[in-house]
Amino acid sequence: MLLVVKSGGARALEEWRASFAKHRPGLEVVQWDDSKADQADYALVWEPDAGRFQAMPNLKLVISAGAGVDHILTDADYPRHVPIARMVPEETAVIMSEFVLSMTMMLLTDIPALITAQAQRQWLRAPAARGIRDTRVGVMGMGRMGAATAALLKQTGFEVAGWSNSPSEVPGVQSFAGPEALDAFLGRSDILVCLLPQTAATEGILCADTFARLPKGASLINVGRGPHMVQQDVLAALDSGQLHRAVLDVFDVEPLPESSPLWSHPGVVITPHCAATPGREARVRYAATLIDALESGAALPHLYDWARGY
Amino acid sequence: MLLVVKSGGARALEEWRASFAKHRPGLEVVQWDDSKADQADYALVWEPDAGRFQAMPNLKLVISAGAGVDHILTDADYPRHVPIARMVPEETAVIMSEFVLSMTMMLLTDIPALITAQAQRQWLRAPAARGIRDTRVGVMGMGRMGAATAALLKQTGFEVAGWSNSPSEVPGVQSFAGPEALDAFLGRSDILVCLLPQTAATEGILCADTFARLPKGASLINVGRGPHMVQQDVLAALDSGQLHRAVLDVFDVEPLPESSPLWSHPGVVITPHCAATPGREARVRYAATLIDALESGAALPHLYDWARGY
Repeated sequence: MLLVVKSGGARALEEWRASFAKHRPGLEVVQWDDSKADQADYALVWEPDAGRFQAMPNLKLVISAGAGVDHILTDADYPRHVPIARMVPEETAVIMSEFVLSMTMMLLTDIPALITAQAQRQWLRAPAARGIRDTRVGVMGMGRMGAATAALLKQTGFEVAGWSNSPSEVPGVQSFAGPEALDAFLGRSDILVCLLPQTAATEGILCADTFARLPKGASLINVGRGPHMVQQDVLAALDSGQLHRAVLDVFDVEPLPESSPLWSHPGVVITPHCAATPGREARVRYAATLIDALESGAALPHLYDWARGY
Repeated sequence: MLLVVKSGGARALEEWRASFAKHRPGLEVVQWDDSKADQADYALVWEPDAGRFQAMPNLKLVISAGAGVDHILTDADYPRHVPIARMVPEETAVIMSEFVLSMTMMLLTDIPALITAQAQRQWLRAPAARGIRDTRVGVMGMGRMGAATAALLKQTGFEVAGWSNSPSEVPGVQSFAGPEALDAFLGRSDILVCLLPQTAATEGILCADTFARLPKGASLINVGRGPHMVQQDVLAALDSGQLHRAVLDVFDVEPLPESSPLWSHPGVVITPHCAATPGREARVRYAATLIDALESGAALPHLYDWARGY
């Protein structure tokens, strides 16, 4: 069985191969420009060249290397009898939780200051980390992603609380529910993580009034949606010292325009909407489940539907 | 009871006060230049102005804000009947373990790439993190620091192994012991953490031969000692792709000379020997135990001895 891959370039091939060898032994993996590529049974692709799939008579399934499939649909000669699967691994909540842990640890150790100092060949004097046990994290939004994030932070040793509409039940994580509990929740949160869904009630919730109720010098991690955040309020809170740092993954307009003042603010860390992006190994694990399902005749999840257009 | 503080400047005062209020309620905390400062019972200081202590008749103990005390001894008028305590909190192993967790998560999320892209106002395309469960960490040196680090990484979800002279026993952490086990240990380590003591046997252990036995594209975190590392071998392994990144906290010469090629190598992250530096809250916790001990007549640990000179 042969899988052709076009994602990450030639440098990534070795990694794809090692991961497939682990999760789908026996599957041969070749690069997009390999002479055997046209014999492929499966394809894992990002921005495939138009017309290429038509030359692959054995093709049973095309797996997008990302959640979107537009980069495949632009091929006018796409053979429509070959199903297209979106990359939507079940472990998205785990991926999100690990991203938030990484950003939280980054704030404790002040990695941005270390990297900026290094760029100037400057040996900082004794930068000191904040301790895990001395840091209270507050997670706004305790759905699947929020609960997974709160659980991982708790497991690592943080003092964690969650805020949501109805009480949440994650072992060891304090639950605050409803608007009347927001004040108490914010007052005990040294790092505030936004994982809320976007609704009329949550739009603009990351505003001056909210920041003012955090302990002075708290930090923000927004991995919810861009419209949760009032940009000028974030900048003002950073400038006044009410916020120490803001880690922003989502924005009203993406990619974030080059002219945005967020790029260069010393208190801001920009991450390009990558909090829930699966790594290669997670993608391989998911692709292997799709191939297994197809080979055993089971239904495939998250297929693109040409009639519905999504 | 009054404590005067000189560390971190005026901006840090609020943080010192909040921490002391938590760990030593009732202790009044004032800044070095406060009009009440000369009435202090205790002092927590970094680089105090010479002659000032002589004007503090009530002073019972001077606590250095760091492990060293040279910055106090340079005061020729120091009142030698007042003991000087070094900052050597028992929780150093915890601080080290959290630093290594932070650096490990940084490698998984590739924070240096994110920060470099931000400096260029560049929205990276879908950078993907490596998963915790897909990452095998190997800790060289399983003394107090190594064991604490392995335990925290394990608790967070990593697959962890330790390598040491004699077998180690950290729950859930695979133990490799002795030179004959080194190959197997290295072969399964995606991230190699050096926490070895410096001995004739361990000097230069982070060399080409060691790197060659790691999986291709592994990363290194050296928080042991500078001489563990053969600098040109680290640079060569990074250039060949055998190593993906090297996080270096310790060096043969510190501060690292401005002319060092390590500063500007894209695969290197320099941290200024800060892996085990306690944060303000940890220092306050320790200072509080010293004050409690002195007030209750107990013996104080880690006092400077003028006769011995250390």
